[in-house]
Amino acid sequence: MKILHTKPCDDGFHMPAEFEDHYGCIMIFPHRRDSWQNGAYAARKAFAEIIGMISRSEKMIVCARYDDYDSARFMLPENVRVIEMESDDSWARDVAPTFVTNGKEIRGIDWGFNAWGGLADGLYFPWDKDNKMARKLCDSMDIDTYDMRSFILEGGSIHSDGEGTIMTTEACLLSKGRNPDMNKEEIEDMLKSCLGAEKVLWLPCGIYNDETNEHVDNICAFTSPANVVLAWTDDTSDPQYEMSKRCLEYLEGVTDAKGRRITVHKLPLPKPVTITADECDGLDDMNGEPTRTPGERLAASYVNFYISNGHVIVPQFGDSNDKQALEILRRLFPTRTVKGVYARDILIGGGNIHCITQQIPMADKFR
Amino acid sequence: MKILHTKPCDDGFHMPAEFEDHYGCIMIFPHRRDSWQNGAYAARKAFAEIIGMISRSEKMIVCARYDDYDSARFMLPENVRVIEMESDDSWARDVAPTFVTNGKEIRGIDWGFNAWGGLADGLYFPWDKDNKMARKLCDSMDIDTYDMRSFILEGGSIHSDGEGTIMTTEACLLSKGRNPDMNKEEIEDMLKSCLGAEKVLWLPCGIYNDETNEHVDNICAFTSPANVVLAWTDDTSDPQYEMSKRCLEYLEGVTDAKGRRITVHKLPLPKPVTITADECDGLDDMNGEPTRTPGERLAASYVNFYISNGHVIVPQFGDSNDKQALEILRRLFPTRTVKGVYARDILIGGGNIHCITQQIPMADKFR
Repeated sequence: MKILHTKPCDDGFHMPAEFEDHYGCIMIFPHRRDSWQNGAYAARKAFAEIIGMISRSEKMIVCARYDDYDSARFMLPENVRVIEMESDDSWARDVAPTFVTNGKEIRGIDWGFNAWGGLADGLYFPWDKDNKMARKLCDSMDIDTYDMRSFILEGGSIHSDGEGTIMTTEACLLSKGRNPDMNKEEIEDMLKSCLGAEKVLWLPCGIYNDETNEHVDNICAFTSPANVVLAWTDDTSDPQYEMSKRCLEYLEGVTDAKGRRITVHKLPLPKPVTITADECDGLDDMNGEPTRTPGERLAASYVNFYISNGHVIVPQFGDSNDKQALEILRRLFPTRTVKGVYARDILIGGGNIHCITQQIPMADKFR
Repeated sequence: MKILHTKPCDDGFHMPAEFEDHYGCIMIFPHRRDSWQNGAYAARKAFAEIIGMISRSEKMIVCARYDDYDSARFMLPENVRVIEMESDDSWARDVAPTFVTNGKEIRGIDWGFNAWGGLADGLYFPWDKDNKMARKLCDSMDIDTYDMRSFILEGGSIHSDGEGTIMTTEACLLSKGRNPDMNKEEIEDMLKSCLGAEKVLWLPCGIYNDETNEHVDNICAFTSPANVVLAWTDDTSDPQYEMSKRCLEYLEGVTDAKGRRITVHKLPLPKPVTITADECDGLDDMNGEPTRTPGERLAASYVNFYISNGHVIVPQFGDSNDKQALEILRRLFPTRTVKGVYARDILIGGGNIHCITQQIPMADKFR
């Protein structure tokens, strides 16, 4: 593995869209007892269901800590590769590399990771193990890696349409815990040069109470170039209403890198999901304090889906809008099978299906 | 990865010879402070030299513990893949899979490992991490694996000529700490069925004071079918003299699986190598006891070489026989470059270059 100190755009590399062809997908077997209730037992079952579904149409690589390897190997299908790797938590979207290609070769970007805000407003300390994963994943796959550790970024805070447009949120990328010494223009230049993009769309915000400082991948996603789904509620009393409305107004006023207007497809939100006292009891304390309080609203959203080669895998919450979300996505992804997975046990950890996956684009070396 | 419960021979698989075409080689970055003096510093340098040499003609995969990954990545060339994996010590020959092929596909055998004799006469406890490596290595390479954990065997205790003949030693395979409930005939049947062989050659013994119960790979090795090198001394006062002589007499009386007589090429031993008080001082105690005592004879032998696609890498001891050993091997390996590596710092750990390497035969999936 070469550790590269150039910029991907200067080498002719860019980030493909998630709906382009994949070689595979990376996930991490969950273990952290202050993130996942009851020793991560329910989360492991939900992860395993998703892993099984993804592995039907692409190669699945699951990172498991030394202590968890046997358990992961036992729970997961045999066509899934389990590799040993220490981690602090289980959010592959944010700690695995962001992959870029030049159409033939694949490389990984190793961003700095500081647990969504470091000592300013991050979610745990330390985060060393997570921060080391991207490079090690590239090494294990024999893929060269860009050293971007000096720039803090999580994969969940960016989407690419594969045609020159990146989408992110101001709430996250301009937060005080990530790159406080860079202004918006400098951050935009960094995204363009690293992701091989010409234009960055800056949604103002994300999902209410989203503890990642409102990652874009929980509120908005490309379904094809110039088409996005936006998490939406018609309930004007919900604080999310104003947030989604601001994003809608922004999107209606911009064009993408190719000069196209963006068509926004509203994806209804489930009714507010709150954590129960029983669920909180199943979580270990962190430094003597509970990580969640009963009644706390969780950042539930159907937008947090994963697009595999064969499927779109969509969180379900036992809500009356579950079916409608699947129906909308079926219209938008006519060549894929849209599947729902009951995801409350992932949501309790603080994210959802997109947050726990990271796609590996197809490249010549995998053919 | 499929975990298989059949026998390789029943599936048409056999163990190729080391001198056949390789995809690559597995090694483990050393760390154990009661095996390797001064925090394994000198050993790491010697390992790195060997890794660099092997990586010139085949793919090199190095396992490093989480704590050692950065150090390994820093010390090793960029064309070497470093993968995270916990281990108890660093003897890839004995803990990595023994690979078998059917000419197209490759599979790994996951033998039971108990640190060269378990609680009877093994060298450390516990050995769980080592014992789990073979399966994890197969998993990381997406190779199916035979579950042979109920049979204790180390890769260093067997050689294959790739044409139906396996060579081992009675001293090791019939030792009380490995498979005490099996007799010689049952062990021979197990070797044949697992390694796809028709004949097992049983040398009586190995190298004097070899703490592996006298692995075959320190005393004798195939250089081509029906040709072996045998570690030899003409010093009749050396206890090794009788041991080598018994092996010679055995080899002169047998034929291989194809009915050929074995041509034995004597490879001189270095003069006895003993560990110094300074070297012992650099080793941590194990359970309050020193692992070596000053003046202890180490099992030095030139036979403990590794055959890569391009090289034969041979231990050197600063002995007057160093050059002669290289010259003999140059005649026997005319298509490879024979290289010496000063290996005292590996010998102190208890083995040599063959013991720290495990070849991965070429297969369709690697082409």
